[in-house]
Amino acid sequence: MLYPNNIKKTFSKEISYKNRGMDLEYLIEKANIYYRDEDIAYIYKKPTPIKVVKAEYSHKGKRITDAFYEMPSTLDFNGLYKGYYIEFDAKVTKNKTSFPLSNVHPHQIKHIRNIYNHQGIVFLIIMINECYYLFPGKTFIDFIDSEKRQSIPYDYIKNFGYEIKPTLKGLDYIKIVDKLIGGNYEKN
Amino acid sequence: MLYPNNIKKTFSKEISYKNRGMDLEYLIEKANIYYRDEDIAYIYKKPTPIKVVKAEYSHKGKRITDAFYEMPSTLDFNGLYKGYYIEFDAKVTKNKTSFPLSNVHPHQIKHIRNIYNHQGIVFLIIMINECYYLFPGKTFIDFIDSEKRQSIPYDYIKNFGYEIKPTLKGLDYIKIVDKLIGGNYEKN
Repeated sequence: MLYPNNIKKTFSKEISYKNRGMDLEYLIEKANIYYRDEDIAYIYKKPTPIKVVKAEYSHKGKRITDAFYEMPSTLDFNGLYKGYYIEFDAKVTKNKTSFPLSNVHPHQIKHIRNIYNHQGIVFLIIMINECYYLFPGKTFIDFIDSEKRQSIPYDYIKNFGYEIKPTLKGLDYIKIVDKLIGGNYEKN
Repeated sequence: MLYPNNIKKTFSKEISYKNRGMDLEYLIEKANIYYRDEDIAYIYKKPTPIKVVKAEYSHKGKRITDAFYEMPSTLDFNGLYKGYYIEFDAKVTKNKTSFPLSNVHPHQIKHIRNIYNHQGIVFLIIMINECYYLFPGKTFIDFIDSEKRQSIPYDYIKNFGYEIKPTLKGLDYIKIVDKLIGGNYEKN
């Protein structure tokens, strides 16, 4: 055995949750492709910003040979639906009882506030306890402004978020956005 | 001399126009930062998508050691202004008499069409003859659909586009967007 038992365990746990993050992105991208193909919405995952340190030119074109990832200050997905500006992020927690606010960077929190104030549709898609919830940006900001807790209880997410069940189309979140547009950010 | 005269000339010309493209981007980003600082609009340049071939982990974190740039299928800038979805691209031409349509990739043309059809505010910012014009997406699509020409004459851009003069704030294009919102894409 290469690793002591506890290290191996932590390692495989991390990999497993990283994969769940990728699974969630996959389900969202699947829906985004479906929306584009059906001319419903134009929502894309933004490329992760990178800082190029070194690039080389060859017959195959420009090739990056040294670069690192930068921290994005906005949310990962944005686009257009029925004339509305849409922006959101996908978040996964392995916690079973609450969603730790440390999952959302302070500049992202500020950004959610700005987008909401300028009449954009902004939200998080949270994966918790193997379930997916669309959690409106306004509800998120209200929680931060009124609670001192460092995590959102699971019951709160269940009560104020909207569950989305994955289907063959992926994670069909635009159905919920329709509710948000009609319901002016209040839960129906 | 390392290069024959004509090659050297072409090379320095390319560098020069590449720099102008960067100057235009700089002026736009300067305006974007101004808009964010003043809480006017939230418009960002999308990172160029890259395909990572190889990455390594070190004590400094994940480092990309081989990657190449991919062709974006959307436009370079997007964001939110007064509840409107905004998307545009910056284009530079060294031509003095017209803007060659080859500057806009076919998938970008399709994307401009889609964004317009879904009530987004979409346009090009064209630099031609040392001047900057906001050229509305609808005008651009109408030109492509009604003309057989492979380039937009400069006079056409002057007549149907909106000139933007650079100021200390950069290229203050949001003033023109205000006209587009009020004037429903028609020239005032």
